[in-house]
Formats: sequence, structure tokens, C-alpha cells
Amino acid sequence: MEEQVIGYRPRMTDAGVRPTHTVSVINEKGETKQVEIAGELPLTIQVDGHEIVTLMTLGTQPELLALGYLRNQRLITEIENIESVRVDWSTESVSIQTKDGTGGQLQEKLTGRTVTTGCGQGTVFSCMIDGLYAVKLQPIALRQSQLSRLMKSLAPYNEIYRSAGAVHGCALCSDGNVEIFVEDVGRHNAADTIAGKMWLERISGRNKVFYSTGRLTSEIVMKAALMEIPAIISRSGITHMGLHLAQDLGMLMIARMKGDKFLIYNGQEHFIHDL
Amino acid sequence: MEEQVIGYRPRMTDAGVRPTHTVSVINEKGETKQVEIAGELPLTIQVDGHEIVTLMTLGTQPELLALGYLRNQRLITEIENIESVRVDWSTESVSIQTKDGTGGQLQEKLTGRTVTTGCGQGTVFSCMIDGLYAVKLQPIALRQSQLSRLMKSLAPYNEIYRSAGAVHGCALCSDGNVEIFVEDVGRHNAADTIAGKMWLERISGRNKVFYSTGRLTSEIVMKAALMEIPAIISRSGITHMGLHLAQDLGMLMIARMKGDKFLIYNGQEHFIHDL
Repeated sequence: MEEQVIGYRPRMTDAGVRPTHTVSVINEKGETKQVEIAGELPLTIQVDGHEIVTLMTLGTQPELLALGYLRNQRLITEIENIESVRVDWSTESVSIQTKDGTGGQLQEKLTGRTVTTGCGQGTVFSCMIDGLYAVKLQPIALRQSQLSRLMKSLAPYNEIYRSAGAVHGCALCSDGNVEIFVEDVGRHNAADTIAGKMWLERISGRNKVFYSTGRLTSEIVMKAALMEIPAIISRSGITHMGLHLAQDLGMLMIARMKGDKFLIYNGQEHFIHDL
Repeated sequence: MEEQVIGYRPRMTDAGVRPTHTVSVINEKGETKQVEIAGELPLTIQVDGHEIVTLMTLGTQPELLALGYLRNQRLITEIENIESVRVDWSTESVSIQTKDGTGGQLQEKLTGRTVTTGCGQGTVFSCMIDGLYAVKLQPIALRQSQLSRLMKSLAPYNEIYRSAGAVHGCALCSDGNVEIFVEDVGRHNAADTIAGKMWLERISGRNKVFYSTGRLTSEIVMKAALMEIPAIISRSGITHMGLHLAQDLGMLMIARMKGDKFLIYNGQEHFIHDL
């Protein structure tokens, strides 16, 4: 449905905060130094006045994070049903107003909570799992030359990580180019923020590649699948359940990507060694 | 209270699973290789038949993880109240039986859920926050020479990380020695597993140092505080809220620990540069 209704956007605040803070530290020599650290703020998501969850986030794109969270959790299915997205840091909350007042029925969906894994872990509700089984990924062929171009395109990103560390970066990429790059203290938040932007701007995940600096755990593979992205790449490692999901979903999975080195964990039939 | 009742232990299974799996991958040259990946299993915690949460874990010490989770969340206050801890991987669950059937009253405590940050993130219930305010940390003095010894003692650990990556390690340390070291796909799980062992064996966190390979976010600082550990060290960075909590709690906070280099973010008055 989305592609047909390009025009509509909910009314949204633009309440992003600066991602880093300068603090004074003492090093091993006893010298005082000024260093940057990453922000971390609680953001409580409320739909039609009903509290859904509180996320800990860098806070740079809270509106897109809230949208993407609701989208990836399949708590709201149509962007056209969202009237407004208002972030108020004084109450550390984002208030989403729907047109049909669906917020009242969300409570029953908020059962079967799963606390997911490690870096970029989050909370998965059963309705997200149901959404996952509805996903049919369309495999893409990825060339090693594209992958190599993509790694070069990604090099300039990860700004916050370079200055402050303690964040993860996720990217939506197409044919060697970075379309969206988001960093957050929670890798799951970075993925959800990308999903929010994709939802808002009707960007399809098909023929795209999802990149993460962090590990490919079950949750990140799930989120990529919910965004209909058929290929996932990480600089880091993977978990057994992340691999199982990628296998079930037919997702191309490449990890341990460092420079020109990488390992293909699943979907090698969709990968072309052309270098 | 704990110190007074050394003897009692709940009846427990010993259902730890092997942490890694060997899988076949294709590298950048098109060569097939065998590599290790970290396990990731869902474990649903049930207390007196009431479902509390599902964690994604490496699964090596599920009984201690469940105990530590309940302990750090302040859902059960006395180990003596726990009759048995039974893990059954066929149902991916751990069943905790209490003596007073407190499980029935836990549901109301399971409100005000917060999904915490990034690496080792988890879910924090309001009752945990209340527990946090009850904590009074007793500051310890840490010498640079002790810290240097500690780093040498930690070097041989992180086995799973070295073979498979995708895990974090946490340790309870005292005067340069590693008392407990736990790795998990979720850093919060590693911390909770340590808390479970401390609870079971009546090990106090006072005069101890908590070490993590991962970032010091608000959640990890909270967990260390709930274990009454007055000093926290990380090889990685910190977040702004992690620092704020350490400041409020008077916790010695050292991060970016690499070899003999490190940065003191809080509590330098408790640190002695003796090298």
C-alpha cells in the first residue's frame, strides 16, 4: 500500500539532541584530559496516551526512532494512521497520536516480551514475530566489486563512534551506496530509526543491503527482514540464532567484514566473486 | 542477611550448553572454511508458573542467569525463599519455585519497563530502580599497580570471544584477581549470571571491582551498584547516563582500558597513581 500514498506525513517535532558531551577525565599518567562521550537518554513511547515502552537512545532522531520502533514491532501498520509524533524531552517522552485511536488496543499486543541479545538488543513482542513469518524476502545477487565499493562508501561514516565510541552504526545501502546511516547507543535503535525513515519516505528495503557495525544477532536479522532487506553485512560476528533466521529467511549474510576480507555465512549462491 | 545463612542452596539443574557451534563459511577468496560462532538461545523465566521474561542467552549457566536476573531486578529478595531452579531446554524455559509462592504477586512489579542501551542491554523494571536508590556504595581505594595486575589476570579469559566473537565478558575481581568471569551474547546476562553466583554463594560485592569488555551504559552501572560493587572498569567506552549514575552513586569508573592505558571518568579521589 505504502508506495501508492507518497504524499502523507504525520505532523512531527524535530527534537533531535546533540549526540556527544565533553567530559573531563584523568589518564594513566594522572593528566587531566577533555574527551567526548556518547549521550544516553530515556525516551518513553506513548500511543494515544498509552505507554508502550521506554528506550534508551542517543536521541538524535527520536521521532524516526519512535516511528521505526512501532513499525518494526508491527504495532501500527499504516503510516497514514499516524496523526502526529511529538517528542518532549522535558517529560522524556514521544507522544504518537493515531487517527483511529488504536493505542487503546495495543496493550493486548504487548505480551510475550522477549529481551533480545547483546549489542543492539531490544524488546520483541509476539506481534513482531507474527510479522516476521509474513515476510517473503526477494533474494538479490551481490557482487564482490559492489561490496568493495560499499565498504569504501561506508568508511567516512561512524562519526560519533570515532569521537566518542560507545555507539553502533547501521546503514541502508543500495548498489555500493549508503542511503541512510544512523548511529545510536542501542544498535536496535539505529535499525529502528532507519525503519522509521524508510516508512516515512516510502523507501523499500527490496534490492537493498543492511549494514551494521555490530553483531548479527537474531534481533538484527529479524529487523532487517521486517524491513524486507534481503542481504545483511556486519563488520562484527554473528550468533547461531542469527544464522538460523537468515537461513530460514533466505537472507544473504556476510560478517567479519574488515577491509577486503569477509566471511559469507549464508546465501553464497547469491554472491558473485568477481574480483 | 545473606552472610548469616551460608548453608542453604535451592535445588538446581545443571543444564549449561556448549557456547559455540562450528559452521562452514566462504571467505573473500571463495574458499570454504570452518569457523566457530556463538550460541544464542531463548530462555523464558517462570516464577511459580508465572512468566516473567524471555532472555536471549549463550546458555552456559542458565540457572545462575535466572537467579541473578531475579536478584538484580529485585523481584525476589531472599535466596532462602527459592525452592528450586529447573532449566528445561526442550521448552526453552527455567522454572523457579518459591517457598511462599511469591510468583503470583510479581506481575504488578513488572510494570514501567525500560529497554536499556546497546551492548548488554536488557529490561529494567521500576522495582529495580527502587532497589538502586536503596544502595549505599562503600568506596574503595584502587591502586594503579593493582589495576595493572588485574589486567594481566584478565588476559587469559574471554575464551569464547577469541574463538567465536559476538560475546561480551564480565568479571568480578578483587585486589588484582579474577574471582568470577562470565561471557554471554548479552552483556547484561553476563552481569546477571555473576550476580546469581554471588547470591548463591553469599559473595559480597563490597571491596570488589566489576570489569566488562563492553560499554559502561546506565544499565551496567546500575547492575554493578545493585551488586554493591563500588568500582567499575571497561575496555570500552561509557555513556553520559552511565557516567551520571556513577557520579550519583560515588562509583569509581575507569574505561578505555587498553594495556596500561586508561581513563578515569569518575571517582579519581579513590584512585592512587603508584606506578
